[in-house]
Amino acid sequence: MTALPPLAVSLGDPAGVGPELIAEAWVRRDVERLLPFIVSGGRSVIEAAARRRGLSVPLIAIADASEATAAFAQGLPILGEHDAEYRPGMPDEQGALLAIASLTQAAALSVAGEASAIVTGPIAKSHLARHGFTQPGQTEFVADASGTPREDAVMMLAGPSLRTVPLTVHTALAQVPSLLSVDLIVRRVRVVAASLARDFGLPEPRIAVTGLNPHAGEDGRMGLEERDVIAPALDILRASGLAVTGPHPADALFAAHERGRYDVAVCMYHDQALIPIKTLDFDQGVNVTLGLPVVRTSPDHGTAFAIAGTGTASAGATIAAIRMAGECAERRARVLAG
Amino acid sequence: MTALPPLAVSLGDPAGVGPELIAEAWVRRDVERLLPFIVSGGRSVIEAAARRRGLSVPLIAIADASEATAAFAQGLPILGEHDAEYRPGMPDEQGALLAIASLTQAAALSVAGEASAIVTGPIAKSHLARHGFTQPGQTEFVADASGTPREDAVMMLAGPSLRTVPLTVHTALAQVPSLLSVDLIVRRVRVVAASLARDFGLPEPRIAVTGLNPHAGEDGRMGLEERDVIAPALDILRASGLAVTGPHPADALFAAHERGRYDVAVCMYHDQALIPIKTLDFDQGVNVTLGLPVVRTSPDHGTAFAIAGTGTASAGATIAAIRMAGECAERRARVLAG
Repeated sequence: MTALPPLAVSLGDPAGVGPELIAEAWVRRDVERLLPFIVSGGRSVIEAAARRRGLSVPLIAIADASEATAAFAQGLPILGEHDAEYRPGMPDEQGALLAIASLTQAAALSVAGEASAIVTGPIAKSHLARHGFTQPGQTEFVADASGTPREDAVMMLAGPSLRTVPLTVHTALAQVPSLLSVDLIVRRVRVVAASLARDFGLPEPRIAVTGLNPHAGEDGRMGLEERDVIAPALDILRASGLAVTGPHPADALFAAHERGRYDVAVCMYHDQALIPIKTLDFDQGVNVTLGLPVVRTSPDHGTAFAIAGTGTASAGATIAAIRMAGECAERRARVLAG
Repeated sequence: MTALPPLAVSLGDPAGVGPELIAEAWVRRDVERLLPFIVSGGRSVIEAAARRRGLSVPLIAIADASEATAAFAQGLPILGEHDAEYRPGMPDEQGALLAIASLTQAAALSVAGEASAIVTGPIAKSHLARHGFTQPGQTEFVADASGTPREDAVMMLAGPSLRTVPLTVHTALAQVPSLLSVDLIVRRVRVVAASLARDFGLPEPRIAVTGLNPHAGEDGRMGLEERDVIAPALDILRASGLAVTGPHPADALFAAHERGRYDVAVCMYHDQALIPIKTLDFDQGVNVTLGLPVVRTSPDHGTAFAIAGTGTASAGATIAAIRMAGECAERRARVLAG
């Protein structure tokens, strides 16, 4: 394991909470058992954000990712000259360009194998879109950068209590029923199963799938998608040997006594998957992208411009994202070695 | 307060967990601070269910609701001759007819003021529908029985952590966007506000309203219902002096640090409202019907035929429903007195 390359962390929007939380993660690196990580650019941003948060974080400029592991005990390794002024709460063009450059470099490092995973800091998509960012989000950016069809890049939310996957994500609720198909469910659940086996140490993951409608349609009385789409998909998945159950009524599936019965809940739409995890694990939720050739995680929160620089943002999710990236990278390396 | 009439409890389906949980509620009446309650019918069912659960519950047949309060310390008052065999887990016609008769009588008692509230035990709607029950559910039954327009009978789920209201309930998800309207939101939120003031001791309730779409539509990028329907409704409600906020992204609204900021979350559809409360308060959730001339509560679970008679069902929600009915009835009596 000593040969594992470092993790690559992108800054996120420098006007958001990303920089200060990365600095705090470095301070807590030992107690939180974090693998060595690099930050891509933003040297003066991190320096100012750390100072504002009252943290002492020596920064070490490195010229190559391979120097990071040796440097990590003494300071936070920074790779790349891209930088900006630190203006918390005030997103601007300079910051957007830095966020894009940081993400681009961190993705390239992980695709090249110079980093063993990428952890992306929070960005504001609509703000970056005005400054040349053409993907719908960072998930699609990393999918494109790693040559993965976007349909196979599957978002999973993981916290201490629960893992959930939304099968449809950033789409109006009215569009959800027409987006669901047997093919979509079969394809994405297979990605979920393979990724949990490879990266999460769950060779036969127990996968609970929700219904779309109240009470999972109650035998067709409140919607037919369970009968016509979801159940047939689950039949196909079970026939191929996967431990899939459902469609389950979504409202009861996340109660304490149910959560031990599955390793991941696959849900039909955004809020169905995100309400339970944010309700239970708000400050510790990690967004993991399954199905990529690289390991990618992210804290499950936004830029929080309103509280950037105030010292009140919790570093819990950033730390959890960095730790999970390391754990997944180690498991993958073991699988490849073994 | 001593003059408050007893609460009326309907049995629910006698093949479900209702009877045994009512028996346990009586056993725990003192420690749980429950007001005196009557069960409508089902004498031999309750007797057998209590014995099977290992509970000692003397039953006292009463001829009039006014006898209940004096009898309650010595035994569980039963009003009415309607009865059935106790066959846990085996719903049949005899049981369905008993469930309907029990509900009918309990509703009539509360409408007549002989009971100060109705607490309804769990039924299986589709089973009862085959035996002459014509309403979609008990909420509509009680609305009809009390002469209330069904649109004004509003379901609220209440637990120790949270209160939520689904604006649409037992309808396919695909229908939800077309069912939402400014009028519906304004009318139902007003019912919620008035009921929380009258029955829950919250004269100026803080009402958080969710969006329909992910991230509450994110400025129209993921759906327009927030802009076109929800926000205009909230403007009207605020203009009339109500403390209404939103539309809020639903995923983050139920996190621990958010829950203290509102008294009730009004949600757009079933799972949006029920996922958070069942995730947090599974065994203690109460279904309250707001907007009725009578107080009506119910445990927020079904008949659980599969575990009826096994002694494993939790009485938490039944006890919480009886306690909440009593608290609401006392507040209403106080308001009327003064």
